Amino acid sequence: MSDTCNYRVEGMSCGHCRSSVLEEVGEVAGVEQADVELERGLLSVRGDGFSDEQIAAAVSDAGYQLTGRA
Amino acid sequence: MSDTCNYRVEGMSCGHCRSSVLEEVGEVAGVEQADVELERGLLSVRGDGFSDEQIAAAVSDAGYQLTGRA
Repeated sequence: MSDTCNYRVEGMSCGHCRSSVLEEVGEVAGVEQADVELERGLLSVRGDGFSDEQIAAAVSDAGYQLTGRA
Repeated sequence: MSDTCNYRVEGMSCGHCRSSVLEEVGEVAGVEQADVELERGLLSVRGDGFSDEQIAAAVSDAGYQLTGRA
């Protein structure tokens, strides 16, 4: 079953940052959809079978830091 | 002869913004080198034969606004 997880991400400042994070997170196996609320520093990920660690690694690959669940 | 012009640019917030501006400005005929100081919102362009209007148009194409000479 598909589930949604919300995370806090530090350092995203503009639409380019948003795109970078969404691109990397979108490549994680099991992720069906991802959204970023830039102003609040929030990342929402919907899907099945991915771990917090995988999402944190993808965010890190994009150049930002996932600081925890939101 | 090669000359350097300095401009003020609004809205650049991160390295991605910097890259976008440098890519567009670098495509203007006559531009030999361009640099961005992100913190101060400054764009420096070195070359010969380009106009302020061409640089302003390139900055606009990148999604930002050139507000004048610095």
